[in-house]
Amino acid sequence: MRVDRLFTEVRLATMASHRPGLGIVEDGLLATRGGRIAWVGERRDAPALEARETIRGEGRWLTPGLVDCHTHLVWAGDRAHEFERRLEGATYAEIAREGGGILSTVRATRAAPREELVRAALPRLDALLADGVTTVEVKSGYGLEPATEYRQLAAARALEAERSVRVETTFLGAHTLPPEFASDREAYLRLLCEEMIPRVARDRLAAAVDAFCETIAFTPEETRRVFEAARAHGLPVKLHADQLSDTGGAALAAAFRALSADHLEYANAEGVTAMARAGTVAVLLPGAFYCLREKQLPPVESFRRAGVPIAVATDCNPGTSPLVSLLLAANMAATLFRLTVTECLLGVTRNAARALGLADERGTLEIGKRADLALWSIERPAELVYMMGARPLAGRWVGA
Amino acid sequence: MRVDRLFTEVRLATMASHRPGLGIVEDGLLATRGGRIAWVGERRDAPALEARETIRGEGRWLTPGLVDCHTHLVWAGDRAHEFERRLEGATYAEIAREGGGILSTVRATRAAPREELVRAALPRLDALLADGVTTVEVKSGYGLEPATEYRQLAAARALEAERSVRVETTFLGAHTLPPEFASDREAYLRLLCEEMIPRVARDRLAAAVDAFCETIAFTPEETRRVFEAARAHGLPVKLHADQLSDTGGAALAAAFRALSADHLEYANAEGVTAMARAGTVAVLLPGAFYCLREKQLPPVESFRRAGVPIAVATDCNPGTSPLVSLLLAANMAATLFRLTVTECLLGVTRNAARALGLADERGTLEIGKRADLALWSIERPAELVYMMGARPLAGRWVGA
Repeated sequence: MRVDRLFTEVRLATMASHRPGLGIVEDGLLATRGGRIAWVGERRDAPALEARETIRGEGRWLTPGLVDCHTHLVWAGDRAHEFERRLEGATYAEIAREGGGILSTVRATRAAPREELVRAALPRLDALLADGVTTVEVKSGYGLEPATEYRQLAAARALEAERSVRVETTFLGAHTLPPEFASDREAYLRLLCEEMIPRVARDRLAAAVDAFCETIAFTPEETRRVFEAARAHGLPVKLHADQLSDTGGAALAAAFRALSADHLEYANAEGVTAMARAGTVAVLLPGAFYCLREKQLPPVESFRRAGVPIAVATDCNPGTSPLVSLLLAANMAATLFRLTVTECLLGVTRNAARALGLADERGTLEIGKRADLALWSIERPAELVYMMGARPLAGRWVGA
Repeated sequence: MRVDRLFTEVRLATMASHRPGLGIVEDGLLATRGGRIAWVGERRDAPALEARETIRGEGRWLTPGLVDCHTHLVWAGDRAHEFERRLEGATYAEIAREGGGILSTVRATRAAPREELVRAALPRLDALLADGVTTVEVKSGYGLEPATEYRQLAAARALEAERSVRVETTFLGAHTLPPEFASDREAYLRLLCEEMIPRVARDRLAAAVDAFCETIAFTPEETRRVFEAARAHGLPVKLHADQLSDTGGAALAAAFRALSADHLEYANAEGVTAMARAGTVAVLLPGAFYCLREKQLPPVESFRRAGVPIAVATDCNPGTSPLVSLLLAANMAATLFRLTVTECLLGVTRNAARALGLADERGTLEIGKRADLALWSIERPAELVYMMGARPLAGRWVGA
């Protein structure tokens, strides 16, 4: 068989569900053709292969490229000073008076042309890629007005022209209430449901619709309206659910067969059961938990018992998770949430792809899937989760 | 004035104590000659300078190279599997039966030739250097027998031949009781005090002597004997103090005018006062606090009130802090211990140098000090602490 690239002398963590755990193949071989995996498995089982290029791994580990399935990577402005002021004892009210908080990011993002949004996102993206990420989800939600929301999504897409990476965009107009609608929530909901979501769907600006259902954001009833609009226009949904309080977000997400419900520290038992039935992925975001010094742990054991797939993401954002390392997110998921190493690694590959509705395309090393690959200079996969701040990536391919 | 290198178009965070806070100079200039800082300050105040090489910072920030003043960087073996097993629910007793724990590192380190120790440490060192570190302290303590302790120190020194970095070695024979002395502590203490410390001093294998004073390691009385031997042989001391319980370690360290007392979560008020009087630096190690999911915070406010200088380090080690990012340690010190940004940044520069007895030589941008420099692509110094996993380093010089 003629192939494009042949990876030999590699140990494989295929993440394939027909194998136990990480789907390990100790003496592995992988071949690509046309940007997809043409063959993968034990070297001794391989057919005769003629390759244009052969990459010898010299015993390194080959995994699917990592998938960061929840980020707010594209923003303008700077919140480092706000971080500094909080540590000096400034209250949230003082910081708001000084012009800080999420609305400062909204102001800066509204003022930034697309090129500026791209330029600002690139160092953050580069850090993610250096950790082996090949797919990154990027949400809007710092525009909160049509033009800026669309520009944010366009900037996210434009990252694909700047770097070798796949970007999946998500529309998060329902992130927070924009200040100009502070006294008219209804008008903003109509803008979301009657103008922005239809436009996002028609012009394919995003692959999914997300909302922040929380006491400080949108109510369950408002979220339902946003989801109904998404459904009416053929877009799948995701939800920032039960992060700071139990609003029944997990069950609400499941009722709309959401691709994922994210955060979930306060998700209740009924919600977990509903998620399992709906096939909704639980996306855990330990970076925000860590930054906010939260105490309430997500119900990991309930997810396990119910069979809810668990993913892990950076939640990269300027306010509550300025985190640009997916491996560090995995370490936090293990250290803080007590996920096992296997759960962490499936959580940044197979289950992260599923959280984006891409289970058929990415996240595992299986024949027919995209040849998005990461090669690691490690002795065992656990090192990827165990070390903090290490740089074990030896190579990365997108559509090899 | 003729100089070697001229850094222009830079903003300086000099960390110099004669300026407030980070010692910021917005329109700065720095010149080096013979590996030292020949001039530094406001550009408009600079004399006429003729340089062999000019580096234009284009508005980037120049700081002293970072100093990681507490690491166990040199070890052999692999504890990632143990991390994995613990997350799967294995108890410490089970892991010990499976051959895990610190003694597994001791076994592997004893079996490793010097070249193997160097090879294993290099990826960890490279990660530190990529964060702007120019000086790294490395402790022995995984040999617990003369030949291996000396070999570990030699391997640490040998890193200087492999990379552009300054290594400061510390003798930590009193890390834990070696298994072969389990029933004869007295004999090991004699070995430490009568053979190893004299040899370390005579052959200048290390610049200081450290000990782990804790219920699971050495008693205060045993530590005192180790320190007396160090003093008798002219070596300054440091102490792993009050990490897991209050053993009076802070006061003990101060009584010997220790360069630093490290960890200190359980340090008592008397100990803090004694440290202030003795000029002993408090080295905080939030990586271990994070990995062990500790709850007891070090008495930061007491250090502030007493005027104890605070440093921050990675504590890089295979068991309780597999952390190879000093910037991430700084983020943890802010997030978990509530250090201010200024405290964090002085803690990885000026005060870290002081914790190594090198306050006159490193850690600030001042005339006469070593030209160990880090250049950063950031808008303000707070970003170095605020972002997690970012890679803002634009350049690094050791003796520029």
